[in-house]
Amino acid sequence: MYRRSFLTGMFALGVGCLDPVDADAQADLLPSWNDGMPRRALLDFITRTTTAGSPDYIPVEQRIAVFDNDGTLWSEQPVYFQVAFAIDRVRQLAPSHPEWQTQAPFKSILAGDMAGLAAAGDKGLLEVIAATHAGLTTEAFTQIVKDWLASARHPRFNRPYTDLVYQPMLEMIALLQGNTFKTFIVSGGGVEFMRAWTERVYGIPPEQVIGSSGVVKFEMPQPDKPVLMKEPKVEFIDDGPGKPVGVNRFIGRRPVFAFGNSDGDQQMLEWTAAGAGLRFMGLVHHTDGVREYSYDRQSRIGRLDKALDEANRRKWTVVDMKHDWKAIYPFQLK
Amino acid sequence: MYRRSFLTGMFALGVGCLDPVDADAQADLLPSWNDGMPRRALLDFITRTTTAGSPDYIPVEQRIAVFDNDGTLWSEQPVYFQVAFAIDRVRQLAPSHPEWQTQAPFKSILAGDMAGLAAAGDKGLLEVIAATHAGLTTEAFTQIVKDWLASARHPRFNRPYTDLVYQPMLEMIALLQGNTFKTFIVSGGGVEFMRAWTERVYGIPPEQVIGSSGVVKFEMPQPDKPVLMKEPKVEFIDDGPGKPVGVNRFIGRRPVFAFGNSDGDQQMLEWTAAGAGLRFMGLVHHTDGVREYSYDRQSRIGRLDKALDEANRRKWTVVDMKHDWKAIYPFQLK
Repeated sequence: MYRRSFLTGMFALGVGCLDPVDADAQADLLPSWNDGMPRRALLDFITRTTTAGSPDYIPVEQRIAVFDNDGTLWSEQPVYFQVAFAIDRVRQLAPSHPEWQTQAPFKSILAGDMAGLAAAGDKGLLEVIAATHAGLTTEAFTQIVKDWLASARHPRFNRPYTDLVYQPMLEMIALLQGNTFKTFIVSGGGVEFMRAWTERVYGIPPEQVIGSSGVVKFEMPQPDKPVLMKEPKVEFIDDGPGKPVGVNRFIGRRPVFAFGNSDGDQQMLEWTAAGAGLRFMGLVHHTDGVREYSYDRQSRIGRLDKALDEANRRKWTVVDMKHDWKAIYPFQLK
Repeated sequence: MYRRSFLTGMFALGVGCLDPVDADAQADLLPSWNDGMPRRALLDFITRTTTAGSPDYIPVEQRIAVFDNDGTLWSEQPVYFQVAFAIDRVRQLAPSHPEWQTQAPFKSILAGDMAGLAAAGDKGLLEVIAATHAGLTTEAFTQIVKDWLASARHPRFNRPYTDLVYQPMLEMIALLQGNTFKTFIVSGGGVEFMRAWTERVYGIPPEQVIGSSGVVKFEMPQPDKPVLMKEPKVEFIDDGPGKPVGVNRFIGRRPVFAFGNSDGDQQMLEWTAAGAGLRFMGLVHHTDGVREYSYDRQSRIGRLDKALDEANRRKWTVVDMKHDWKAIYPFQLK
């Protein structure tokens, strides 16, 4: 997957640096996008902001593009993939935790009762995250995530979770990178969970991944052999109004381009939109129940309601997956 | 200053990319460094880690270099420059705060009683930081810092504080950047205070500046006009054991190169040293009371005691400012 992203990026680099996106070159760009409004808006934005002398020109160092992850760059159904990871890890750790057999919400997980887990709400989920994401070093955790990704399969598609990234979004990231936009992930997901694979899959390095985090502590169990221990305590939730806060903390510069898919991305898009000059705000609308999933205003996961109203009111770009994307996943490419 | 840094960087880029630092080219590199052990160790490290086929070769994406700021990249005496800023701001805000006339530690500041401020300790200092760094938007704060830097003068050198950066360290940063090391600042100083000037002065962009921070809140005082408000509450102290934690949080990758000057940098150097492969750990030792300041084990500001012992024990590079640096500040160059 990284190979594809890389090659597309190299191609975009050739076009983008010597001569910004123009009409002749456009036919070959973003091949998995149908020629609708979102594709045109994106190409128009890149042309106007990267062409020297354009009134909308944006200097290279200000070309900050931020992307939500779950539901924007990869799927998030039937549960956030990080929750699938946590569930598998509860099952794996259960032999050492006999108390979980009777203790909610672990009991529900071990009984395969997903409704029971859902009923435990955010509080229950945070308990599960704490139990499965803490008490080990940052490096051990990264290895566990990598091992899980190598073996776990998505229940519907029967493929590794990292196969379920959106091909059109990989093309968009590569095109932006090729035009010297610096691409960041800004996700409610755990930062260390994402960093284990985002460089390989998206070509986005760890230092450009912003997410929720737990407290980490520096310890020296043996002389000259320090470790960073993950503690079972939430430090920062990078969601909703936390997203512009995370952007400010990690990037320190207002983005000029932001893409999300849910109400949790609304404030990040608002913050981006409030900058001076031409800005791009986009939402992925999950309209394709056949090739992916169809959900929006009523969904518990990835609800898109208020942000959709705001996008319509303010003429932000809304991607209709069913109509705008020729392919959803890389494995669907011919 | 940025111009000089930029030009040195371009030069280094030419040498570094086509052909890693070699003996013939070395004479022109790091011109403000005398030909002692630190300069040689640095050039040797760059050659060994960037030459294809070298057993110590480090892939480009892993070339993460971290620098402390106060006392490592610019001076920190007679007080941290951010404290000088806070003191000036207390004086400026005093007319709106009649209660400060009788309230410690503000009373001490307004009376010019620096011993009184020092006696208030870290707790007093945090009160001053909260009163002077909060209650305004992130953008308003950045402008206030820029305005201060344009008018304030260092009491001894009678120059803008940003003139008091170390020329040899600017050369080192440019050389590393020219050899595709990604350079980060990891400082106990406030992240928003630093980001107001680090790109101009060091050529290090905001997204590569890590520091202490206060809580920031997303607010929408007018429709579609969001702001980020700085609150009077500490969020993260990026010092001592907090430095490797900050590195993990913001970069998510272990550095291969770390430079500091005080015990507050010890854990960051330890964390860097514990990585596999060739690593560079360096300390600036303030030995030049004539051209700059002389202080180490007993100093209240920038104490260098335990970290110096560890550096000596583990053969880390210790820069003797008096002997190793031909010039301290850019304005001393002929």
